[in-house]
Amino acid sequence: MSLYSETFYADAINRLFSERETIGYMLKVEAALAEAQASLGIIPKEAAMVISASCNVDFIDVNKLKTDIVLGGNAAIPLVQQLTKIIKNTDFEASKYVHFGATSQDIIDTANILAIKEYITWTEEKILLLEKVLVQITNQHKGTIMIGRTLLQQARPITFGFKTAGWLQSVTNTKKRVQAIKSQLFHIQLGGAVGSGNITITEEVQAKFAEILGLEKSFPWQSQRDTLNDFAGILGVLSGSLGKIAKDISLMMQTEIAEVFEGAAEGKGGSSTMPHKRNPVTCALILSNSTRTPGLVSTMLAAMVQEHERSAGYWHAEWETLTQLMGLTAGSLEKSLDLIQHLEVSPEHMLRNIEITNGLIYAEKVSLYLSKSIGKMQAHEAVKKACKSAVSEERHLKEVVQEAFPDITDLETLFQPENAIGNSVSWVETILKNYNTD
Amino acid sequence: MSLYSETFYADAINRLFSERETIGYMLKVEAALAEAQASLGIIPKEAAMVISASCNVDFIDVNKLKTDIVLGGNAAIPLVQQLTKIIKNTDFEASKYVHFGATSQDIIDTANILAIKEYITWTEEKILLLEKVLVQITNQHKGTIMIGRTLLQQARPITFGFKTAGWLQSVTNTKKRVQAIKSQLFHIQLGGAVGSGNITITEEVQAKFAEILGLEKSFPWQSQRDTLNDFAGILGVLSGSLGKIAKDISLMMQTEIAEVFEGAAEGKGGSSTMPHKRNPVTCALILSNSTRTPGLVSTMLAAMVQEHERSAGYWHAEWETLTQLMGLTAGSLEKSLDLIQHLEVSPEHMLRNIEITNGLIYAEKVSLYLSKSIGKMQAHEAVKKACKSAVSEERHLKEVVQEAFPDITDLETLFQPENAIGNSVSWVETILKNYNTD
Amino acid sequence: MSLYSETFYADAINRLFSERETIGYMLKVEAALAEAQASLGIIPKEAAMVISASCNVDFIDVNKLKTDIVLGGNAAIPLVQQLTKIIKNTDFEASKYVHFGATSQDIIDTANILAIKEYITWTEEKILLLEKVLVQITNQHKGTIMIGRTLLQQARPITFGFKTAGWLQSVTNTKKRVQAIKSQLFHIQLGGAVGSGNITITEEVQAKFAEILGLEKSFPWQSQRDTLNDFAGILGVLSGSLGKIAKDISLMMQTEIAEVFEGAAEGKGGSSTMPHKRNPVTCALILSNSTRTPGLVSTMLAAMVQEHERSAGYWHAEWETLTQLMGLTAGSLEKSLDLIQHLEVSPEHMLRNIEITNGLIYAEKVSLYLSKSIGKMQAHEAVKKACKSAVSEERHLKEVVQEAFPDITDLETLFQPENAIGNSVSWVETILKNYNTD
Amino acid sequence: MSLYSETFYADAINRLFSERETIGYMLKVEAALAEAQASLGIIPKEAAMVISASCNVDFIDVNKLKTDIVLGGNAAIPLVQQLTKIIKNTDFEASKYVHFGATSQDIIDTANILAIKEYITWTEEKILLLEKVLVQITNQHKGTIMIGRTLLQQARPITFGFKTAGWLQSVTNTKKRVQAIKSQLFHIQLGGAVGSGNITITEEVQAKFAEILGLEKSFPWQSQRDTLNDFAGILGVLSGSLGKIAKDISLMMQTEIAEVFEGAAEGKGGSSTMPHKRNPVTCALILSNSTRTPGLVSTMLAAMVQEHERSAGYWHAEWETLTQLMGLTAGSLEKSLDLIQHLEVSPEHMLRNIEITNGLIYAEKVSLYLSKSIGKMQAHEAVKKACKSAVSEERHLKEVVQEAFPDITDLETLFQPENAIGNSVSWVETILKNYNTD
Repeated sequence: MSLYSETFYADAINRLFSERETIGYMLKVEAALAEAQASLGIIPKEAAMVISASCNVDFIDVNKLKTDIVLGGNAAIPLVQQLTKIIKNTDFEASKYVHFGATSQDIIDTANILAIKEYITWTEEKILLLEKVLVQITNQHKGTIMIGRTLLQQARPITFGFKTAGWLQSVTNTKKRVQAIKSQLFHIQLGGAVGSGNITITEEVQAKFAEILGLEKSFPWQSQRDTLNDFAGILGVLSGSLGKIAKDISLMMQTEIAEVFEGAAEGKGGSSTMPHKRNPVTCALILSNSTRTPGLVSTMLAAMVQEHERSAGYWHAEWETLTQLMGLTAGSLEKSLDLIQHLEVSPEHMLRNIEITNGLIYAEKVSLYLSKSIGKMQAHEAVKKACKSAVSEERHLKEVVQEAFPDITDLETLFQPENAIGNSVSWVETILKNYNTD
Repeated sequence: MSLYSETFYADAINRLFSERETIGYMLKVEAALAEAQASLGIIPKEAAMVISASCNVDFIDVNKLKTDIVLGGNAAIPLVQQLTKIIKNTDFEASKYVHFGATSQDIIDTANILAIKEYITWTEEKILLLEKVLVQITNQHKGTIMIGRTLLQQARPITFGFKTAGWLQSVTNTKKRVQAIKSQLFHIQLGGAVGSGNITITEEVQAKFAEILGLEKSFPWQSQRDTLNDFAGILGVLSGSLGKIAKDISLMMQTEIAEVFEGAAEGKGGSSTMPHKRNPVTCALILSNSTRTPGLVSTMLAAMVQEHERSAGYWHAEWETLTQLMGLTAGSLEKSLDLIQHLEVSPEHMLRNIEITNGLIYAEKVSLYLSKSIGKMQAHEAVKKACKSAVSEERHLKEVVQEAFPDITDLETLFQPENAIGNSVSWVETILKNYNTD
Repeated sequence: MSLYSETFYADAINRLFSERETIGYMLKVEAALAEAQASLGIIPKEAAMVISASCNVDFIDVNKLKTDIVLGGNAAIPLVQQLTKIIKNTDFEASKYVHFGATSQDIIDTANILAIKEYITWTEEKILLLEKVLVQITNQHKGTIMIGRTLLQQARPITFGFKTAGWLQSVTNTKKRVQAIKSQLFHIQLGGAVGSGNITITEEVQAKFAEILGLEKSFPWQSQRDTLNDFAGILGVLSGSLGKIAKDISLMMQTEIAEVFEGAAEGKGGSSTMPHKRNPVTCALILSNSTRTPGLVSTMLAAMVQEHERSAGYWHAEWETLTQLMGLTAGSLEKSLDLIQHLEVSPEHMLRNIEITNGLIYAEKVSLYLSKSIGKMQAHEAVKKACKSAVSEERHLKEVVQEAFPDITDLETLFQPENAIGNSVSWVETILKNYNTD
Repeated sequence: MSLYSETFYADAINRLFSERETIGYMLKVEAALAEAQASLGIIPKEAAMVISASCNVDFIDVNKLKTDIVLGGNAAIPLVQQLTKIIKNTDFEASKYVHFGATSQDIIDTANILAIKEYITWTEEKILLLEKVLVQITNQHKGTIMIGRTLLQQARPITFGFKTAGWLQSVTNTKKRVQAIKSQLFHIQLGGAVGSGNITITEEVQAKFAEILGLEKSFPWQSQRDTLNDFAGILGVLSGSLGKIAKDISLMMQTEIAEVFEGAAEGKGGSSTMPHKRNPVTCALILSNSTRTPGLVSTMLAAMVQEHERSAGYWHAEWETLTQLMGLTAGSLEKSLDLIQHLEVSPEHMLRNIEITNGLIYAEKVSLYLSKSIGKMQAHEAVKKACKSAVSEERHLKEVVQEAFPDITDLETLFQPENAIGNSVSWVETILKNYNTD
């Protein structure tokens, strides 16, 4: 539909949720149903073979199918009609057993889970790669001093690796969430009309059907969408975590700060009017995605109140929403991997920025030091006063403090950035022990 | 991207926001810019003519453009590159003046407004048609008695026209809102790099550019997105109003209620497993849309906090979001028109349903009647008690009340539905005076 | 702030997040910090004892604190000021060590986690109770025949226990999610100014601090909010699952359906104007909550893109949002428990409703039966035709089918509801094996 | 409920939506109903006088009322009960006519509109004040040169007044929207049980009732919530526009940029650990609000699909949501006024920042200049190359360009910021003509 189908998304995932692939998964499910029923003697083995052989997306008139969806309200109805017609033409007997005892939602939901399974395989691979480059950059920069910032103000020095270690941990957390949800998510949907099964949809059929498709047996969840929404939530969180990384990088790329840069590529990040600019284009796209995913998660959640055994509208609201949520999150993931892999870091500019406050950023360190002798509140007030003088007189805080507290001997030490980074390095090292840093 | 591109949307609007049309609008804007600048002597007239002639979507390599968006972060950058290259091949001099002094956002935003203008033309037509069929159905059924329901419970009788008059008014309200926003929305975006203009983008160029495109002159609104969001809000409200109509109809279509039905069409509303069902398929799609639009509006609003003179991400978040919001709302509008046009109404079932409570729905009427003699709270309690007896003894409320208050003489009148519809008819007639009911 | 503070929420949780309790948790954290630092010799043991003793909400001027928040932007700043002042009045030396080396976010986040821990304890208790009553009702009604409905249309019979088994499973799924997140969520926040620690905030201090508070040691997550959002997502899903239950019940309570009812209580569910009504008041409140929670989850997710080491606005957006999300979800949980505990079920009305379609609901069963001899599509068409005749001629489907297929001998069996419930009973029994049904 | 009730909100609006005020408005509506009915002879004049006199919030047991809401599901039911009881104690006859023929929603919706009317009066005053200070700052700084930034990168110079003129226009746009919605929003709700009126709720009663309350007569809009949602949308847009201002200011306050500052106040913006910091506290609170309001608007929109004549849950979802949306927007408005009124602007730092790129920001100007002789694309490429050299050799762009194009004579002029601000000043002056700048 949109000019931007490649801008915000990942190619592989666009393909996975393409029309053809979606139909392909539905056909795979129809075939599996016939095979399961045949293996249990519910339908003839020959019929199942014919059905299986006919479950080929090349036989389907996709445009007609898309148009027909509007009549029945879902994609399985016209697909089953086409499939039955195809089979009837060659084997009337077999055509009796297409979609035998099943309902549209059985096919659509199970096919969707199959696609989600592929999606998760892809996602886990990308997460592992992202984790790996984040471990590398964290290890490499665990000692690279930069200023830490709170409320967009310079606060106290940290190291760049300390910052990226935070990014890394959020990604690892998502990795674990994705791992944990798989056993609950990879479930078949198979229950017939109202989910209760029937003589052709027995517990044994469910088991066989699940086995063929590589999924877990499950009680129907036709209008119980909690696990699907749990998954949507995990995607929303991942998109948010990646948005946080992009936000940090875009802020550090500001002309006045210039501490990191997106990797340069031919034609990348250029402005049509300002040839000198180096725009945080990848960050912008990731941030755009993380601006959009919360609304999609909320739509999924709003669609949970599904009436009775199948909803009139809420189920339908999931279809494009979840696909788009997966697509945008995949896009962010792929872009984040590219972003971190090619990130250019400028330790020089990081050091330069530490100096621009004329020592004000060491104020807390001085305050903490003084508090031992004169008390915390008192030190806080004294240093606050010294800071004001430093600012108004455009002097370095070190000088002002030295004047106010001439007895302090180790003032120089207090104003060295490497002494102000707290436990940045050791804490990063603790974290990195959980990863392979080779 | 999706199998459902025709399910939830309107064909005409899908085409309007197709890749080719979107590029076409951008090219139209580039041509208008050249023409405006030429008419004011800023660029040579010959150059403008060459540029105009080259602004043809057939010359554009759309796939390359889509791929290149990722590099620059928006569609105008690769479009201008392709356009300049095309022109350079034939007229080197003219190629100097392509996109002269403009910035990507000038092109994208103005092109978007042009598309929105078309969208609104289409929308206004559909709203007028919907208004017309709602006026018809309201007029036709202003006296058709049915039960009014609150909290999903039968309450007191109304008429079906009274219900549809409410639907009608919400649609008319949106019509007025759309009408009112046009003068604020149909504004050019033209300001160059940071919106401040330059020697090639003067107030005169803006005026001429606006005139050529049939839009209003405007101070740049590059990162002031309030009017665009006001428009998004109007769409969200329309989608909600249509969702309310679909909700009512889907509830009235329940098997146990059966008061109205979606028009039957060959193959429509069928279930793959239950041949007898008459599913509210159109309602389900409209409700699906109204479940999704709130999240899209919230994304638009969340994207308002755009940094400085052009945002790094929030502007980007608008693109697909607004298109999708327009698409879904257009889909709901077209489907609602079809829904109301072909709605089958069953006055018999409406009357039947009025009787199923054994007179309980007249309780308020009795209560109000009694309150004149014994007081409101007292009447309320007395009638409550009578209702309990009626229910437990499975008797008609009329009998129970007659026993409790033997002096009432005009009890029969109280229990006639036509006497219980309040001012339904006269109020509907008052409303219909605002419309042409011929 | 609102008249409705008791309407949508749970009293116990309102108290937990009251002003006093919130301050109390922050003071508990300040005390724990002093104790941890004292135990490691970083501050004098006497100071810690004084600080601990002063960490009493009764000493705090709550109104002043609330007013002062606006100045510093968070609650910890004025709290530390008041606390320090209180201590300075009695023990100047001890006052030096209040909030020693910590930052506001350390206190607020850790205090919030302590409250969340209490919240989860309460929630788990309620979930267990809800699970218990759902197991009971499921067991009791595993064979109670009712109609299953899809797209708000009667479809095929199920049992009421089959429906409630679905509700039960969604609640159990949430129980497991809550159980699983605890180990990730119950983490301290302690890192000082920018999260990197300092000489007074060492890894040892973190460990001791965590131990005192009964939480886990953790690397600071000041602007990494993924786990908090994972928790928000779980709440959103729970609220949605409970909304689904309330939706089902409110629909079944419709006057025309009347299959279940909210338990009657003196004054409950009454309408001010219609004394006979039995409104689904509890359902309405739960549905109201599930309408509101998706927006709150989306706000949490939108707030994830927190700048650098502490955000300017996004962190702040979490505070009331998460509290409200917890509050509404707790309200829904408590109300759902009450709803299910006192639910009145009418098996008679359930049976009555099965009959109102003149056998149409058995159409799929007939279709499936016929498909064995004449093929699925063919049977579908034949039964569709029979249904049309039955409707137009107001006859029972059984008669019409008998006429069309006089050879069928066991037609009666096909039209008995107990033969049409598929595997409802056995599947419910399988599910119930996972629970204690005594 | 929350410690933060004063942090994010405005005191005046907190009071307006306090429990007592809310009840007060409902009582005002009950009184107006009685008066209207008495004036038309529907109820005795004496009864109306007694009812009016009893409609006093001091007579109401607020705590009992709050508890009782849960039973009936809305605040009007227990209020009418208390009111009737109070009146019955003194005048049994009058007690019969309390809430005569009305329904809960009539009272709650109309009372809400009365409160909204007050809210809008307050809001319009604040908007006018904000507009005034924005006009002042725009006028004062129309020539104050600063760098314009796109995608967080320095782009081309503008003036600070040019930036604030954008802020100003968005606020003026909202002023007009608020003005325009009043005639549609200030409508009574009065229709009785199902909205259709009855013998005590006639068109004449509606007219009189409206007149007494200073509102417009209206057909009931019990489940048609489009106008209320249009209003919610306007608030969402205002909150977003104010968020954009706060975003800009918070970014300009960054330590490395330091172009503007929130006004200093005793104790304001301090960090508990970093005495030197000057946090954008007010910006953070406004941004927090603009992060939260989109989710609230989406909840309002999601609640539009209200069933039949009164919804079971969606109406309820509006109550706290709209109040909170109004509260947060009012908070942002009051805070924005304070923010702009006390904003400290540093023209020196603005000029300093313009210089930090060694002339790179003039690249577009040079490019545009060169394009006249060598063509746009060619100039773009040449300048791009020059920029690269300037960066890698750490030289000023002016020198590099001079070397590459030795023939250019007026190079100095190209690199003067006052020549690079385009039409900033004249455009601002055009805008200011719409305002009183005295």
